[in-house]
Amino acid sequence: MSRFDGRKVDELRPVKITKDYLAYAEGSVLIEMGNTKVICTASIEDRVPPFLKGKGSGWVTAEYSMLPRSTQTRKPRESSRGKVEGRTQEIQRLIGRALRSVVNLEALGEKTIWIDCDVIQADGGTRTASITGSFVALAKALHKLYEEKVIQTLPLRNYVAAVSVGIVEGIPVLDLCYEEDSNAKVDMNIVMTDMKEFIEVQGTGEEAPFSRQDLMALLELGEKGNEALIQIQKEALGEIGSLIGVEEEIGGTGNAEHGNRI
Amino acid sequence: MSRFDGRKVDELRPVKITKDYLAYAEGSVLIEMGNTKVICTASIEDRVPPFLKGKGSGWVTAEYSMLPRSTQTRKPRESSRGKVEGRTQEIQRLIGRALRSVVNLEALGEKTIWIDCDVIQADGGTRTASITGSFVALAKALHKLYEEKVIQTLPLRNYVAAVSVGIVEGIPVLDLCYEEDSNAKVDMNIVMTDMKEFIEVQGTGEEAPFSRQDLMALLELGEKGNEALIQIQKEALGEIGSLIGVEEEIGGTGNAEHGNRI
Amino acid sequence: MSRFDGRKVDELRPVKITKDYLAYAEGSVLIEMGNTKVICTASIEDRVPPFLKGKGSGWVTAEYSMLPRSTQTRKPRESSRGKVEGRTQEIQRLIGRALRSVVNLEALGEKTIWIDCDVIQADGGTRTASITGSFVALAKALHKLYEEKVIQTLPLRNYVAAVSVGIVEGIPVLDLCYEEDSNAKVDMNIVMTDMKEFIEVQGTGEEAPFSRQDLMALLELGEKGNEALIQIQKEALGEIGSLIGVEEEIGGTGNAEHGNRI
Amino acid sequence: MSRFDGRKVDELRPVKITKDYLAYAEGSVLIEMGNTKVICTASIEDRVPPFLKGKGSGWVTAEYSMLPRSTQTRKPRESSRGKVEGRTQEIQRLIGRALRSVVNLEALGEKTIWIDCDVIQADGGTRTASITGSFVALAKALHKLYEEKVIQTLPLRNYVAAVSVGIVEGIPVLDLCYEEDSNAKVDMNIVMTDMKEFIEVQGTGEEAPFSRQDLMALLELGEKGNEALIQIQKEALGEIGSLIGVEEEIGGTGNAEHGNRI
Amino acid sequence: MSRFDGRKVDELRPVKITKDYLAYAEGSVLIEMGNTKVICTASIEDRVPPFLKGKGSGWVTAEYSMLPRSTQTRKPRESSRGKVEGRTQEIQRLIGRALRSVVNLEALGEKTIWIDCDVIQADGGTRTASITGSFVALAKALHKLYEEKVIQTLPLRNYVAAVSVGIVEGIPVLDLCYEEDSNAKVDMNIVMTDMKEFIEVQGTGEEAPFSRQDLMALLELGEKGNEALIQIQKEALGEIGSLIGVEEEIGGTGNAEHGNRI
Amino acid sequence: MSRFDGRKVDELRPVKITKDYLAYAEGSVLIEMGNTKVICTASIEDRVPPFLKGKGSGWVTAEYSMLPRSTQTRKPRESSRGKVEGRTQEIQRLIGRALRSVVNLEALGEKTIWIDCDVIQADGGTRTASITGSFVALAKALHKLYEEKVIQTLPLRNYVAAVSVGIVEGIPVLDLCYEEDSNAKVDMNIVMTDMKEFIEVQGTGEEAPFSRQDLMALLELGEKGNEALIQIQKEALGEIGSLIGVEEEIGGTGNAEHGNRI
Repeated sequence: MSRFDGRKVDELRPVKITKDYLAYAEGSVLIEMGNTKVICTASIEDRVPPFLKGKGSGWVTAEYSMLPRSTQTRKPRESSRGKVEGRTQEIQRLIGRALRSVVNLEALGEKTIWIDCDVIQADGGTRTASITGSFVALAKALHKLYEEKVIQTLPLRNYVAAVSVGIVEGIPVLDLCYEEDSNAKVDMNIVMTDMKEFIEVQGTGEEAPFSRQDLMALLELGEKGNEALIQIQKEALGEIGSLIGVEEEIGGTGNAEHGNRI
Repeated sequence: MSRFDGRKVDELRPVKITKDYLAYAEGSVLIEMGNTKVICTASIEDRVPPFLKGKGSGWVTAEYSMLPRSTQTRKPRESSRGKVEGRTQEIQRLIGRALRSVVNLEALGEKTIWIDCDVIQADGGTRTASITGSFVALAKALHKLYEEKVIQTLPLRNYVAAVSVGIVEGIPVLDLCYEEDSNAKVDMNIVMTDMKEFIEVQGTGEEAPFSRQDLMALLELGEKGNEALIQIQKEALGEIGSLIGVEEEIGGTGNAEHGNRI
Repeated sequence: MSRFDGRKVDELRPVKITKDYLAYAEGSVLIEMGNTKVICTASIEDRVPPFLKGKGSGWVTAEYSMLPRSTQTRKPRESSRGKVEGRTQEIQRLIGRALRSVVNLEALGEKTIWIDCDVIQADGGTRTASITGSFVALAKALHKLYEEKVIQTLPLRNYVAAVSVGIVEGIPVLDLCYEEDSNAKVDMNIVMTDMKEFIEVQGTGEEAPFSRQDLMALLELGEKGNEALIQIQKEALGEIGSLIGVEEEIGGTGNAEHGNRI
Repeated sequence: MSRFDGRKVDELRPVKITKDYLAYAEGSVLIEMGNTKVICTASIEDRVPPFLKGKGSGWVTAEYSMLPRSTQTRKPRESSRGKVEGRTQEIQRLIGRALRSVVNLEALGEKTIWIDCDVIQADGGTRTASITGSFVALAKALHKLYEEKVIQTLPLRNYVAAVSVGIVEGIPVLDLCYEEDSNAKVDMNIVMTDMKEFIEVQGTGEEAPFSRQDLMALLELGEKGNEALIQIQKEALGEIGSLIGVEEEIGGTGNAEHGNRI
Repeated sequence: MSRFDGRKVDELRPVKITKDYLAYAEGSVLIEMGNTKVICTASIEDRVPPFLKGKGSGWVTAEYSMLPRSTQTRKPRESSRGKVEGRTQEIQRLIGRALRSVVNLEALGEKTIWIDCDVIQADGGTRTASITGSFVALAKALHKLYEEKVIQTLPLRNYVAAVSVGIVEGIPVLDLCYEEDSNAKVDMNIVMTDMKEFIEVQGTGEEAPFSRQDLMALLELGEKGNEALIQIQKEALGEIGSLIGVEEEIGGTGNAEHGNRI
Repeated sequence: MSRFDGRKVDELRPVKITKDYLAYAEGSVLIEMGNTKVICTASIEDRVPPFLKGKGSGWVTAEYSMLPRSTQTRKPRESSRGKVEGRTQEIQRLIGRALRSVVNLEALGEKTIWIDCDVIQADGGTRTASITGSFVALAKALHKLYEEKVIQTLPLRNYVAAVSVGIVEGIPVLDLCYEEDSNAKVDMNIVMTDMKEFIEVQGTGEEAPFSRQDLMALLELGEKGNEALIQIQKEALGEIGSLIGVEEEIGGTGNAEHGNRI
């Protein structure tokens, strides 16, 4: 069976991570997965949101946006419309959670890392590419703090990468492009660490429910895809990568959201 | 091992669905799961959003809100703050997707069903209770159209229910209350049909990654919980339930979102 | 002459106040006046708005909202529309003023009481029901502070209740339901204390002007209605009621709004 | 007893209405009541709001605003803050209702009259001055339509004027300036026709409740004040005034607001 | 050749500056240039925006607005639309820059002067009239501080005035009214000091490009117009004028905007 | 004398225009001027804004935005803040005007060209680079319509380019980088055609007024800079360039803004 663009069912699109893409950010990359292109930056701010003030813990938060002409038809700017869409909010919450899960926020101290993911060109999988690319930008920014001896260890416990999988024309496939995504009956985003553990699994069968067996096949593909992506992250990070997971962990992580009873 | 409130690990809180809770809505219920209480209504509107106009297909959309004092400390109104939070948008998108997945939108015709979920009291699991309760309100509203002979069949292919599961103190448990939810290392929402198929699986391990084995245990609990909830929905719907899944399906569902390339 | 629903011209609809309706609020009731149902809560916050900071005086403020399907046709949420309607603002200002008029804000000290009125079902008279119900929730919340010895007296000088009156088909009537309200030539809301004094009188004759004699007849009905409502509040409050009006008043009330020259 | 500015208790401040104050509006006046100065304009638009489309009836709506430096300390613009205050909305709703009450909206036909009240200088009583001044601007604009033979009669049934009254230092007084308004225990706005009937009565005793006797005294003063104001309106309108109330009334007025069940 | 309204090509419309137009502002004028009428006020606030806090320097900022019926057809309020138009923002930025350029912000100290320009009637040239009028209001407000000995000198280095010029039917003309402005091929606003130096030159040839020679002719007219306007400002300011430019300048001006790399 | 970065006073930074930078837009370029990098796209929409409907004329409009980390310190997104800054609006109005000035809008027909300028990296001169780059994107998009025979000529009358000039340490210099821009006493943006005519001249001397002589020197530099930039545009456009200015002009351009009397 051959896919829309000739790939095998378990084949990623060509992936390229360009480091230090922008001049001013503490960390920045351009990640390309096929025609999907996202600029990811990590910026360090010397304070934390109100709910963390004085608690000795840092924070990682993410914003996501698409250039109006990243898509086939022009998409109006959220700034012009005066509000951020639900889809955007969902994605930036996902990116933030995914990255926070591997950062030792206490070792970071009272700092906020702002992750910005700006989609230059969109051909499916922009949210997963954003996570994969942002991890590299984040590691770069944290390494800068480490080199400046602001922090004593690189406060990253694991690598984290993400990939989309889905069922297209009845077949589970890896890393869907837009064309495939539009025709997928089931659509899943899988975020994983280099320990082959899950950070987030989000599967949706809006057009058709899916079975436990389908789910297993998709998890399998996701695992495979993330393994390959983490390999590419390692190449991009080089030396820095050797510091990930080294730090000794100290106490709890204080990651709990400022939760209302829900 | 005993849980915070004495329940067994695979035990739901007491569930109660009060039908026809409000006088004016086409469908309305109060769903209570322990201390969590949500008013769910279904309202019929005789038109569709612009992206569906003239396509012969209907739509189901959802809004979710919490009363300011549904929570332990007062939560400012989103209307006063002038914007809808990311969390709210994420939840209303989830509810909408879950319900659309079982509605034959073409058989519904050019109508919109508005689902409103207003949380009166929040003790964990409000989004899953909203889905479970809204399904009953939705079925009631559709049945009203059917009785009025506006539609020829009850355009519902399946029951749909949802429940939360999570890993608390290392143990997978079903239907988390707020206290448990705050301490959960892994948190998952599972939406299923009466055919034991998945509509949506959303698992997050922000504080700690989780293994494939953890995932399996959680899915098991979710399946069990949803089976029980669908039984309660059946009791609430009585006769109407016998019409669910009866209709013969006609062609595709046209459920595809008005997608930009993502 | 018989009214739309068979009541006498000076007859209230059946009134029911359910105390402690919600688990977390310091004070909460469900008030029902016929088919009109409003959840009223009182929440205590340990600070005051900026214009009162450091002045030793407390504050009472109110918010009002209608569930989308409290009405016969679905009413879009103000949070979705991104702004609060004029009607809503007018009502919440009225509720706040009415309740502040009987609270000794200085004896309360630098605290804010947030009143939330959420209309579950609307059949006319929601603003007056909100005032009547909120007074009970407020008394409960203040009593909680009193029991915890945070304050030395119950800082309530009087009971306050409110009712609507109007001229329908030429006849002055008490407590209009929606059907009557839509046909009323004159519409008036009357807020009174248990001393038979007025807190607020708002009469509007948009469709037809009204005479001094009409006004007198309406005030008469309003007085009668409020007397009955205060009796019901007394039953709901029981023991607590005996503390109302007991405190010795100390100096001025500091209620003046942060007024611009108008 | 002598008032703050030497007036008698039942004495208006000097009132001046300058006609045709602006060059482009269909009707415009500058009204001065002592130091309070308001520019009132009436603009004709050849369509009605959606809820009146095709019903053969016109509409009158009002907007109210204060220049930032109309007040003693600068008041931030509502446009800069991005939202219209509750107080503003309450006032513009009042002005709109008051004027609509005397317009034969059906005789007007499908047109909207926009009333704009911009306070140039504020020394108490801006909302009542706005009503009194706007009536003259409205009559001028309607007369223009009449002269152009767009309408066959001047669709005004009555004059309408408004004045504030209140209890200051225990004494009921007419037409409060800011200084008095800040010290008033009771504050009332009274809108009346030239037939000595009430259009709107809004009395508030936030700082102290008031008795039926107080209310009577205030109504007396209001009647006296409005009588004098209508005399001034008559002088301002001259000839045009003779056409007011002349038209034969045709059926109902269709003034009912697009009401939700409240 | 004769202009639309009979003026010579280098002739201003009749200009009138009414001082102390409003009672409460520290400085206020009504400026009339033909049918264009703008109320300009200067208000003193005892603090600076965050970016200047603790830097010992003051600030001057401007807001501009048009009454809805200042124009030939009614213009919706920006407060009702919930946002400030681009044109408005451009104008208020221009007014602020123009006035700041002649104020010694350090000698002013940590104060903000708010300039408010409210257009009562608009017949072209409202932004330049706003600058010319606001300068007088500003000087009055600063002089008040000087008289109260809050500041030791009048911190104004120069007069500043502004005028529009343009090319209409091929001819460069001074001070365009609306009719001319609508037909101008080139449109330019020129802000100058009494030293015949430029503060701002903004020329636009949207409908047709313009040559260096055109530019020279327009600058010539602008210089002439501003000279005349400054003469009128001098008359309006009288004695106060003699203090302008007297102060000895101390160090830099600290006027730099809180600039991002652009 | 040597500049901050070693350039001569009349020397541009290295300029590079990368054509067809994005896959989906009808026209797109990346323009780099030194460290300033802007993605410019031109999108065709098959309708016009309401004020042009049915008039047979097209429209060109522009939006401008900076990535949060295009600047040295992170700049919050306008979408998150819910409003578009004055500076942004001023820039997008400038870009729109500049491009419209060379387009034959009637020959374009009822279409809107959306120009999007997204600043990836900002080192001064982003608004002028946006104009220079967008012209190329616009020409590409129009050429696409021409090739598809939707329009009969390339409706471009002239090239248009823009450059910044300023007075830094007393010396007039061309194409300011951020460091220079922050220290400039006078700052000017000059937009010109290939006929050496001006489209827009905007000079500001906020920190110090400037003389006629200064202005002349700056215009000289601007002319030189724009000449060089148009040469680079010609190289980027190749063949297409030969079609610019060829069309025969038909009547007026209908470019007049939907003007209120200002």
